[in-house]
Amino acid sequence: MKRRKVAIVLSGCGVFDGSEIHEAVAVLMSVEREGAEPVFFAPDKPQASVVNHKTGSESAGESRNVLVESARIARGKVFPLSEFRAEDFYALIFPGGFGAAKNLSTFASEGANCSVDREVEAAIKSALDAHIKIGFACISPVIAAKVISNGVRLTVGSDSSVASALESLGAKHVECPADSFVADEKFSVYSTPAYMLAENTVAMSDGIGKMVSEILRD
Amino acid sequence: MKRRKVAIVLSGCGVFDGSEIHEAVAVLMSVEREGAEPVFFAPDKPQASVVNHKTGSESAGESRNVLVESARIARGKVFPLSEFRAEDFYALIFPGGFGAAKNLSTFASEGANCSVDREVEAAIKSALDAHIKIGFACISPVIAAKVISNGVRLTVGSDSSVASALESLGAKHVECPADSFVADEKFSVYSTPAYMLAENTVAMSDGIGKMVSEILRD
Repeated sequence: MKRRKVAIVLSGCGVFDGSEIHEAVAVLMSVEREGAEPVFFAPDKPQASVVNHKTGSESAGESRNVLVESARIARGKVFPLSEFRAEDFYALIFPGGFGAAKNLSTFASEGANCSVDREVEAAIKSALDAHIKIGFACISPVIAAKVISNGVRLTVGSDSSVASALESLGAKHVECPADSFVADEKFSVYSTPAYMLAENTVAMSDGIGKMVSEILRD
Repeated sequence: MKRRKVAIVLSGCGVFDGSEIHEAVAVLMSVEREGAEPVFFAPDKPQASVVNHKTGSESAGESRNVLVESARIARGKVFPLSEFRAEDFYALIFPGGFGAAKNLSTFASEGANCSVDREVEAAIKSALDAHIKIGFACISPVIAAKVISNGVRLTVGSDSSVASALESLGAKHVECPADSFVADEKFSVYSTPAYMLAENTVAMSDGIGKMVSEILRD
């Protein structure tokens, strides 16, 4: 039997300027544990910022590339997001981290007035057209709210400020504990709070694991 | 009940010039799943090299700091290894990645003639003196072989070249499958092959999970 392929979209490597590393690895582990084949993608463009993760300050003047840094999580094997073809995949999953709000969208700086990276928007729209399942963890549901809108049911846990921004973008926010997920059956869109709510890797990876199991059920 | 603390020593962020990210996260997840408290450490010094993980080539002229990059995996909370005090911990664990062979030791360039970073050596010696348990994943057992020597039983899976280097350093190599671990009861030293042998995160995280469970079994 041919293994089902799951596309995982990274946004760099590190919670403050890229993909949240624990979440990205939890998605990867869950996909492999379910017997599916993970394939990593990332936009090939400069990061919006480089943050010194020890101090929390921006490293002024330093520039890093989203695709190149994402390759750290992917152990080298990551493709430009422009090469994503929805028809080759069973599902498309976005881990969180500030990279989702800085590199995949402008939510970190513009909130409900955010725009979404052109390639990210195209990937999600083609996934909807191909009727494949789409998963979002942590802060990345803001991207789904902006691109899909139309009352799509999403969760970021219980953060009232981000929940209210999601609703401004045309989504329906549903409260959800860290170790669970929310399904929107109409759009085949799934979301889990991850580190928007989880206090450690146990609840975070339980939530992501349950979401990925549901995405790969049947 | 006070949670037992486990020190995890990182060597940067990315398999080719730092800590292997999946292994580091698997150690973290296993420690938290067992109810213990992870505390990250890393040497505060420049990396031996910076590797573009997309191309595999060294980024000539670029410099990154081991502690600062390790903070990406630790979500900011990582301490200089010089501050490690064995008496405050139940165990000390080293994930793998080339960082263990480039930043924590010189094994990548010098093989059986390698030296070990002064702070790493001090941490291991103080852990032995304090009789706390020590775990090594992937390539990091070369550090144990060099510092402990004296026939300490270690595994790197089945790689005959590295196994032979381990024996040159005074260790006893024991073959081991990816999803298991080897215990040296005399030194309370544990090792698992991880990505020296594992072909995906399932076997890798099973091996690390079993090793961490055994380390935290009292």
